[in-house]
Amino acid sequence: MPKNARGISETVIRRMPVYHRYLKELIEDGVERVSSKELSGLTGFSASQIRQDLNNFGGFGQQGYGYNTKALKDQIDKILGIDKSYKSIVIGAGRLGQAIARYNGFRDSGFNVISLFDIKDDIDDISGIKVRKMEDLEKYIRDEGVDVAIITVPREVCEDVAKRAIDAGVRGIWNFAPYDLKGPEGIVVENIRLNDSLLTLSYFMKEIS
Amino acid sequence: MPKNARGISETVIRRMPVYHRYLKELIEDGVERVSSKELSGLTGFSASQIRQDLNNFGGFGQQGYGYNTKALKDQIDKILGIDKSYKSIVIGAGRLGQAIARYNGFRDSGFNVISLFDIKDDIDDISGIKVRKMEDLEKYIRDEGVDVAIITVPREVCEDVAKRAIDAGVRGIWNFAPYDLKGPEGIVVENIRLNDSLLTLSYFMKEIS
Repeated sequence: MPKNARGISETVIRRMPVYHRYLKELIEDGVERVSSKELSGLTGFSASQIRQDLNNFGGFGQQGYGYNTKALKDQIDKILGIDKSYKSIVIGAGRLGQAIARYNGFRDSGFNVISLFDIKDDIDDISGIKVRKMEDLEKYIRDEGVDVAIITVPREVCEDVAKRAIDAGVRGIWNFAPYDLKGPEGIVVENIRLNDSLLTLSYFMKEIS
Repeated sequence: MPKNARGISETVIRRMPVYHRYLKELIEDGVERVSSKELSGLTGFSASQIRQDLNNFGGFGQQGYGYNTKALKDQIDKILGIDKSYKSIVIGAGRLGQAIARYNGFRDSGFNVISLFDIKDDIDDISGIKVRKMEDLEKYIRDEGVDVAIITVPREVCEDVAKRAIDAGVRGIWNFAPYDLKGPEGIVVENIRLNDSLLTLSYFMKEIS
């Protein structure tokens, strides 16, 4: 596997979590091998697309044998950096922020929420995680070496809050605010566009009406 | 605009909410016209891509003048079916379900949450919206003519819960469980893949490390 996987398109990268998800299910079901054809049936991507994707990171398959599910998942874990862990904070301790802070699935992917921040200073700890005041944000990020800020504030303040977190040292933003954040060079920004998804749902609902 | 917009690829459809979002911002900022080139700068799609996308639904632009932001947004509203409204329920009244039920942005897009459902029967109303027992799910969907089920239950029960909702009559599913739901013919399923997004974030974090 090339150490620097740059040059691989984002479209390919975005298919990797999908492989990861199905491989996890196959392993849970006790399946030891899987062909690109079977993976195609699960994921909806073509078998040749799948072989090509996985070849990007070095070929793990064997002709006529398929992929060993565990070995392939281990490789994809490494590609996706799941073995690494990131100190994360949630900015915005409303219900969504609280739900994220408590969700084990994110911890399992290596994102440990170590604190929440909110403009309100009377919010109780969330499952033992402390809610801090926004004015302490920068100092906390610097002192603790926070890697990732998960943003669940309203749209109007999203950009400002992200800038503060980035200036203080976070290198990744997971943004839930309905605002398309663009990070500066060297900062990773992943926007969750719930409203876009809802409008897509709306479109297809109209189509079947 | 063709009444039946079928034959338009999902990739095009998924860009429509992006146009919608930026047009809304432009209108809020008092901008009356926008060229495909300016839209390109905002969205990151190429100008010719944008012209082609919008042509799919009938051309709204004028050569050398650009698009009237309000007229274009109105058209896109119609394409996306935002003028329509859908009776929605949230299944799973945990923190995520509660956050969704309370979020005004979804109501503004025409998705009115009229009830929540949960296996626990001691959850208080959420902002005046009643939390009902799962055993009442089917009857409620039929009686109220519920259109959409928003699913925030754990992965293990997601498929079962979706099937119950669909069998009782919902035509759309907005799924937040980390499970790739596939609906039967004629049912619209939109999966929010938070874990996939997080793994993508993880990949790019590793790349910049």
